[in-house]
Amino acid sequence: MDVNDLDALTITTIRTLAMDAVQKANSGHPGAPMGLAPAAYVLWGRIMRYDPSAPEWPDRDRFVLSAGHASMLLYAALHLFGFGIGLDDIKSFRQWASHTPGHPEFADTPGVDTTTGPLGQGFGNSVGLAVAERMLAARYNRSGHDVVDHRTWVVCSDGDMMEGISHEAGSLAGFLRLGRLNVVYDDNRVSLSGPTSMTFSEDVTARFSAYGWHTVTVEDGNDIAALEAAMRGAIDDERPSLIRVRTHIAFGSPHKQDTFQAHGSPLGEDEIKATKQGYGWPEDAHFLVPDEVYQHCHGLTERGRSARRDWEETLAKWRDAEPDLAAQWERVLARRLPEGWDDVVPEFPADDKGDATRASAGKALNALSGVLPELVGGSADLDPSTNTHLGDAGVGDVVAGDYSGRNIQFGVREHLMGALANGLSLHGGLRPFVATFFMFYDYMKNPVRLAALMGQPVVFVYTHDSVGLGEDGPTHQPVENLAALRAVPFLYLYRPADANEAAEAWKAAVARTDAPSALVLTRQKVPVLDRSRLAPADGLHRGGYVLKDTPSTPDVILIATGSEVHLALEATERLEGEGIAARVVSMPCFRLFDEQVAEYRDSVLPAQVTARVSVEAASPFGWDRYIGPHGVAVALDRFGASAPGDVVMEKLGFTVANVVDAARRAMGKDPR
Amino acid sequence: MDVNDLDALTITTIRTLAMDAVQKANSGHPGAPMGLAPAAYVLWGRIMRYDPSAPEWPDRDRFVLSAGHASMLLYAALHLFGFGIGLDDIKSFRQWASHTPGHPEFADTPGVDTTTGPLGQGFGNSVGLAVAERMLAARYNRSGHDVVDHRTWVVCSDGDMMEGISHEAGSLAGFLRLGRLNVVYDDNRVSLSGPTSMTFSEDVTARFSAYGWHTVTVEDGNDIAALEAAMRGAIDDERPSLIRVRTHIAFGSPHKQDTFQAHGSPLGEDEIKATKQGYGWPEDAHFLVPDEVYQHCHGLTERGRSARRDWEETLAKWRDAEPDLAAQWERVLARRLPEGWDDVVPEFPADDKGDATRASAGKALNALSGVLPELVGGSADLDPSTNTHLGDAGVGDVVAGDYSGRNIQFGVREHLMGALANGLSLHGGLRPFVATFFMFYDYMKNPVRLAALMGQPVVFVYTHDSVGLGEDGPTHQPVENLAALRAVPFLYLYRPADANEAAEAWKAAVARTDAPSALVLTRQKVPVLDRSRLAPADGLHRGGYVLKDTPSTPDVILIATGSEVHLALEATERLEGEGIAARVVSMPCFRLFDEQVAEYRDSVLPAQVTARVSVEAASPFGWDRYIGPHGVAVALDRFGASAPGDVVMEKLGFTVANVVDAARRAMGKDPR
Repeated sequence: MDVNDLDALTITTIRTLAMDAVQKANSGHPGAPMGLAPAAYVLWGRIMRYDPSAPEWPDRDRFVLSAGHASMLLYAALHLFGFGIGLDDIKSFRQWASHTPGHPEFADTPGVDTTTGPLGQGFGNSVGLAVAERMLAARYNRSGHDVVDHRTWVVCSDGDMMEGISHEAGSLAGFLRLGRLNVVYDDNRVSLSGPTSMTFSEDVTARFSAYGWHTVTVEDGNDIAALEAAMRGAIDDERPSLIRVRTHIAFGSPHKQDTFQAHGSPLGEDEIKATKQGYGWPEDAHFLVPDEVYQHCHGLTERGRSARRDWEETLAKWRDAEPDLAAQWERVLARRLPEGWDDVVPEFPADDKGDATRASAGKALNALSGVLPELVGGSADLDPSTNTHLGDAGVGDVVAGDYSGRNIQFGVREHLMGALANGLSLHGGLRPFVATFFMFYDYMKNPVRLAALMGQPVVFVYTHDSVGLGEDGPTHQPVENLAALRAVPFLYLYRPADANEAAEAWKAAVARTDAPSALVLTRQKVPVLDRSRLAPADGLHRGGYVLKDTPSTPDVILIATGSEVHLALEATERLEGEGIAARVVSMPCFRLFDEQVAEYRDSVLPAQVTARVSVEAASPFGWDRYIGPHGVAVALDRFGASAPGDVVMEKLGFTVANVVDAARRAMGKDPR
Repeated sequence: MDVNDLDALTITTIRTLAMDAVQKANSGHPGAPMGLAPAAYVLWGRIMRYDPSAPEWPDRDRFVLSAGHASMLLYAALHLFGFGIGLDDIKSFRQWASHTPGHPEFADTPGVDTTTGPLGQGFGNSVGLAVAERMLAARYNRSGHDVVDHRTWVVCSDGDMMEGISHEAGSLAGFLRLGRLNVVYDDNRVSLSGPTSMTFSEDVTARFSAYGWHTVTVEDGNDIAALEAAMRGAIDDERPSLIRVRTHIAFGSPHKQDTFQAHGSPLGEDEIKATKQGYGWPEDAHFLVPDEVYQHCHGLTERGRSARRDWEETLAKWRDAEPDLAAQWERVLARRLPEGWDDVVPEFPADDKGDATRASAGKALNALSGVLPELVGGSADLDPSTNTHLGDAGVGDVVAGDYSGRNIQFGVREHLMGALANGLSLHGGLRPFVATFFMFYDYMKNPVRLAALMGQPVVFVYTHDSVGLGEDGPTHQPVENLAALRAVPFLYLYRPADANEAAEAWKAAVARTDAPSALVLTRQKVPVLDRSRLAPADGLHRGGYVLKDTPSTPDVILIATGSEVHLALEATERLEGEGIAARVVSMPCFRLFDEQVAEYRDSVLPAQVTARVSVEAASPFGWDRYIGPHGVAVALDRFGASAPGDVVMEKLGFTVANVVDAARRAMGKDPR
């Protein structure tokens, strides 16, 4: 091995910190950090571009520990290389409110570029980070100044490679020729429950070659010269790179190296002692970092500090040469919106025939895209159906070698699409939206959750939102997904009733910069409501609002969302004929409504009016909150069926007659 | 091309039926069936083993149209080859209550072996079907009689191949060397929104070679001799096979062949006419099936009819030689349970220290596995954590070449695990369970839904069910997943309160033969409740029950599930000290409770007691149904945090003190 003493000393320090922290927490994953310590050392010490004193530097290399359970590897590196992580933080690994949680959490720790843990998510994020870099380079590198010029480094485990999302990530990154994406694959051949030979025999490098990646193998994960050479080779190659590194889990542990016992449990004090002995380390020392290691690591960061100083100079020159572009760059990096941005969103005139909310939302999106260059995205092979293609002149697709477009074609890869969007957002400088059928939210649940957990304002557009989509049948007809998304903390789900609510929903989604939104839209046409006779659509911004009121206290309140709102409105006319005064509440966003002050909520749903009906072509789950114990839900607790959409809606009970009947029942006026 | 007239005539009939049916429905996907017609003809005419007069024949080859949107291909084949699908059925394609829904639906149509549509699911199911075949062969083929000896044929599209689950399926099938699995990959290079060259450049056959598959390419999808040779080669190879067939979407359509316009829309009458002209077909005929085609196809099915007759003879001999085994075979195929099967489930003595419900459930499972040989399954690389390994002597793992075990090691492949389990169940003869952390339900949502849609009694075991799991932190701590699963129609979710409810939950899951169950279990220990002083655990079978009552009408009702039930119980003691009579309701299964008669539900939750508290370490979403407008939810509308589990529970408010406080608030006794 071509190592000098300081190299070895630093690597051993990473290993022992990982062992000690996991042992003290009595919880965690020591084995992977011990195996990966040399690779981490080479990455932070010789390869990656960063300045620990400016962990938010926009042109830093991004690092993604997709194998998030190996978090102590990351924390040890951040500590040694001078990020704001102290030894006390390491000692409080996995404790309440520490900066060193069990898995890396974005925003909790300087130097953590994304939250990881659910296997494969980090890999998916990293494709987004790498796409963002190329997209921003295409739009901001001008006048001979490259203000965007960095890489994304990823560490993946066997588990990441088994997950389906690794296929979607590998395939799309290969297609897009993302040369800035470099993946270190930790081939330690041990997963949580045993050797990978129990379930995993594929040739991973051959697989990535089939995707069009550059692949290289480092047979000895302790050989830092080989690691460095492989990483430099990855930098030099124009394709995305997979560096397979043969490591040994819990390297150096006399009884646990290469065993699954070292995967997810502390080694035990005796084993740690024996391991330290083998390393030539003081066996009774805990959390020991030799001074010379700190000094050595500090010296190694000078490369990045100097790179940042150079970059600041470049930036200054570029700013002088391109003041407008620079102003935009600063705006988008700060996630500020330009003044008057929402003036461009169209208002739609009343129209009984109406339009699908997917179509109206698509118009709003396209209008917004004209004033918000940061708005980028696409669909999972459904552009003609989701209406999310940015069609303005000059707005092309992102393709290999030309990343100046704004439409990203994801292919039929919903899971990756979600994780990639999180990466785009995390990178900074872009506001991503992604689209598919609402049913296929099923394939991308975890990224939606992670967007909420990380506070990333990704906009998830979900069309074909109910059994009303018709012929495609029950496999394509969501029933339970509204409830599923409404229960996700910090996620704002909008199901607009018509074109103007759809436009307002897009405004709400864009205005919100610290949480994701989901727009749930119809396939079928719905009337554009006549706002001269009904309340304005900007009531959406309070979550729920009185759309049509009664002269005096209502006898019954009909609460509806999306394509069922017009049924409720029509029902009021029939009820009026029977002398029943019915209020209609449009409730596009439960969460926003719940956030309103009690006074407002009571004004929309007065406690004394207990006769209430919900109308939504979906599971009734969650509606009791608004309709109360005397309420009637016009809803579905079954799956849909294949037939033309209007037939399905009628057969499953979404008719004016049925809403009228439900109102009568809620009022106790029906003998049945 | 080596075709005689009848071959060509039959293929053209399939093509024209697909065009006509989609046109009449004015909805559907004509292009793929037109491209795949020759492959389907060879499969049904020359390759597959089936008897159309006995579509449920247990030893038939299974067919999975993973590209479910190409449903007219399947319906046309089923019609021509004599399954119970008439021309009227074809004419009512995609209409209400027809046997020919938009996507193939299991149980709606004879000859449809699984519901497909969501891309990749069918591929995943097919791995399960092929595993089931090998497992049943290992246990039932005896005395020189092979009563289980068939194959699984699959048609996958480009879209299937892009989905992540195709990777998980390919990788595990390769590992298991499932030679009985043969996939026809419809390489038509067109997806819904454009040519696949927009997003897809990987070398699919190289990828499958990397998984250890036999791969072969048929360059001309109309060359039936080449198709047949490739399929026979697949049969001969001991590895799973991928037959890449270069087809042309909408083959023969003068203006739409090879375009995405032919993917998901009717061709239009004019184009159909022109296409039929090109085929030499009467251009004005619709739904034309020449008599000689019927006769020809009927003749081709004689091979399968005869195979079934032979099989019946083999079966009779085997039954004589192996009467006990035959009795078991008949029992498991009928999904009957042996008498007294549930006597083996242990009762757990009261114990304050208690045990994790994952551990108790694991004991119940192992006990059941002793009397139910059909119970098979495993986890996604989490056996040591999910406690789902069948540990009894002689119960080994399913591995390549030896499928006699009962533990299936899925690797870190949750999505496939769910789809594979559906395939195991659909095959017949096995009762599958699968396990992972509750958080990673996120990765396998769609298969759970499809189990419910298809009425398959798969048992989904989800451990580490709340923020109480502790150190792994928010990425691993479910908050919204209980609500998400409770909203899935026909799915029975149980969150047992203690060891004995866990045992009852396993009984309930096994007893239910027409719907899936989910068992949601703790990582942490919970007390085993003292049933001598509380209601018996079999109250679980009513969904919710009064666990601890008060002498007279309660002042407040505490409703809890899982690990929070003991908090509610402890709270009653403190409340008693304040003179407050609190009832505790354990509510392990919302759905079952809602199914009880009103009288029972009212007895548990009397309308006059409006002071109610729910206690569940999860989103409050959905609880209003039980706590009503005056209720207080002790719940979470945020994500969790990394710290020891008891610390997290305390910090997030899951304490006895907090439950007591909530009870006071619900009663309006608290000044705050």
